[in-house]
Amino acid sequence: MTNNPTIGVTAAKGFRAAGVTAGIKASGTPDLALVVNDGPSLAAAGVFTSNRVKAAPVLWSEQVLKGGRLSAVVLNSGGANACTGPLGFQDTHATAEKVAEELKVNAGEVAVASTGLIGLRLPMDLLLPGVGQAARALSEDGGEAAAIAIKTTDSVHKTAQVTSPAGWTVGGMAKGAGMLAPGLATMLVVLTTDADVDSAGLDGALRAATRTTFDRVDSDGCMSTNDTVLLLASGAAGAAPDAAEFAEAVRTVCADLARQLIGDAEGASKDIRIDITGAATEDEAVDVARVVARNNLLKCAIHGEDPNWGRVLAAIGTTSAAFDPDRLDVAINGIWVCKDGSVGEDRDLVDMSGRDVVITADLNAGQASATVWTNDLTADYVHENSAYST
Amino acid sequence: MTNNPTIGVTAAKGFRAAGVTAGIKASGTPDLALVVNDGPSLAAAGVFTSNRVKAAPVLWSEQVLKGGRLSAVVLNSGGANACTGPLGFQDTHATAEKVAEELKVNAGEVAVASTGLIGLRLPMDLLLPGVGQAARALSEDGGEAAAIAIKTTDSVHKTAQVTSPAGWTVGGMAKGAGMLAPGLATMLVVLTTDADVDSAGLDGALRAATRTTFDRVDSDGCMSTNDTVLLLASGAAGAAPDAAEFAEAVRTVCADLARQLIGDAEGASKDIRIDITGAATEDEAVDVARVVARNNLLKCAIHGEDPNWGRVLAAIGTTSAAFDPDRLDVAINGIWVCKDGSVGEDRDLVDMSGRDVVITADLNAGQASATVWTNDLTADYVHENSAYST
Repeated sequence: MTNNPTIGVTAAKGFRAAGVTAGIKASGTPDLALVVNDGPSLAAAGVFTSNRVKAAPVLWSEQVLKGGRLSAVVLNSGGANACTGPLGFQDTHATAEKVAEELKVNAGEVAVASTGLIGLRLPMDLLLPGVGQAARALSEDGGEAAAIAIKTTDSVHKTAQVTSPAGWTVGGMAKGAGMLAPGLATMLVVLTTDADVDSAGLDGALRAATRTTFDRVDSDGCMSTNDTVLLLASGAAGAAPDAAEFAEAVRTVCADLARQLIGDAEGASKDIRIDITGAATEDEAVDVARVVARNNLLKCAIHGEDPNWGRVLAAIGTTSAAFDPDRLDVAINGIWVCKDGSVGEDRDLVDMSGRDVVITADLNAGQASATVWTNDLTADYVHENSAYST
Repeated sequence: MTNNPTIGVTAAKGFRAAGVTAGIKASGTPDLALVVNDGPSLAAAGVFTSNRVKAAPVLWSEQVLKGGRLSAVVLNSGGANACTGPLGFQDTHATAEKVAEELKVNAGEVAVASTGLIGLRLPMDLLLPGVGQAARALSEDGGEAAAIAIKTTDSVHKTAQVTSPAGWTVGGMAKGAGMLAPGLATMLVVLTTDADVDSAGLDGALRAATRTTFDRVDSDGCMSTNDTVLLLASGAAGAAPDAAEFAEAVRTVCADLARQLIGDAEGASKDIRIDITGAATEDEAVDVARVVARNNLLKCAIHGEDPNWGRVLAAIGTTSAAFDPDRLDVAINGIWVCKDGSVGEDRDLVDMSGRDVVITADLNAGQASATVWTNDLTADYVHENSAYST
């Protein structure tokens, strides 16, 4: 299952990675990942949760990124290290120091990311030896092992990569299956590239990409305390890419990973794309799409393969976007079941038997549009999340 | 089950009511209610959904209420008459005209309320004869039959009443079990009183009462297109009440009905009270309480009797209310499991085995507070709402 040298964070030249079992998770599955940038460049950028309750590793990594350089990223599953107070922050600091010691780098250039249950201290007596173990396991084909080690409730590990004809590559890995909502990317993601791009260039490409990919995934409306998306550049391909091509490559990898996150959301049986068209502004299109995506009644209806378009209108009606209720059109899987705010085509024509469901709402109020991805609401979601910490 | 003369909308003198089976519901259960004010006063007030997609009966009744007088209210279950276009509005108009003809009153003083599936026309060939049937069945002990006829997914009918030592009474009935969220009272409610209060006085008392009762019920975050709360005064008790005492009586009846709505919410196994204290302003307290109440992950955790306080903090962190993340305190059923934004008392001390769960969050940012009621999220909710329209 591992050792594919072209996968994920080791797809780009200049990176090594590892994923090991430190014993943080009671399940005994891999729980600690390490990604190292061997340069020559150490340029990096990151975006983090906009939740005001931020986990210790987020507070740490935000500070580290101010320097625009990363030598390494250490990630653990099995514990979020959120709401753990000053001692939790010391644990994150100690983790970065241990990485620095093992790799002979500066702790101020080591990002830390954690995921798991909120409100519990990490078992540092297991985690720190795990860092040493990971450092010894680092390899240029460790991308898949790293992706596996950051899984929590994920059923599959998630990697993506694209290579430019110009010879540089962007690759990445992601974890996330619950507490998936925007406000920056609600998951842990590490992207790497061997293109030679400075930290400002990375930052611009990363923010542009996340704005229309991870930020438009809204599985359950619940924003994490730990969301982290990092982009590291080694420059090992020796190529300074065309800025637009590079930005598009980053966006492609982000979109691929975001789609994988929705496809693996907790308990979901349907992947739902909400397309809002005819909006006055893109912001309003996103707002409407998100409100529709978060409507529990609609999510239940889709689970039941019920083309209950009234719930789409009831959701849209709660927004402040520009629209006339008598000019709303709604399609489900291509059938315009609602025209001019009232009954349209026969709802019995709608086929919702597949996993993919597309809801299109035309506000008829302008030219802007946006897409948000979500999932249905299922008894399995309830089951999985009513027993998560026990 | 019926004919209790002291119950609901006929508890106050000067009112007659009926509940009949018009055949609108396929189930063959009662589906049409009529409430008549025999005066001498016809003063009335109403509040309606703030959803911009408003059902035809809401658009009609809002206009009717501008006159400040109501002779009668006709209510149907079995169809919301929402998103039905101009023809749906004509159906509402025809219903009011039929009531006016039967009762020899002015159609411009007849409110209409509907509840059920969105996007379907009402079967007027059944509904209009049902109005005649209801008019013939009107009686001074019809309050319970009316309350029964407005049920949709409600498992029980809901009535409440209080009588002042001064001799006047406020009574009422409510329906609602799903699509329960604020923005005004997300349900159908008819309140009656025999106190002699003009429409301005009724309006003030009603708005003050709904603001802290129905508006603070948020079962599933989904706002209806049909929410209607009406208050009719007959003046038949011949007493002009003390304004403060009257307002408190209206508030008491609203609070009683709101609590019954939460207790009967679709699929719920827990009734959850969210108390936010130490807020800078009441608006911020309400905002925080509502965000916590709508957090699906927290609602699942409570269903599983898991005192997962991290999900409370993660929800609070998404608001813009004044607070310092390191000064948040959270109690679940009286156990302060989170102190200063970190681990507090032992979570194993929390007993969540009962139906009632109280979550208290102290923002430590001021003196304001607010309470919002919600429910847990269960597999039964998913089941009920994935098959609603089929």
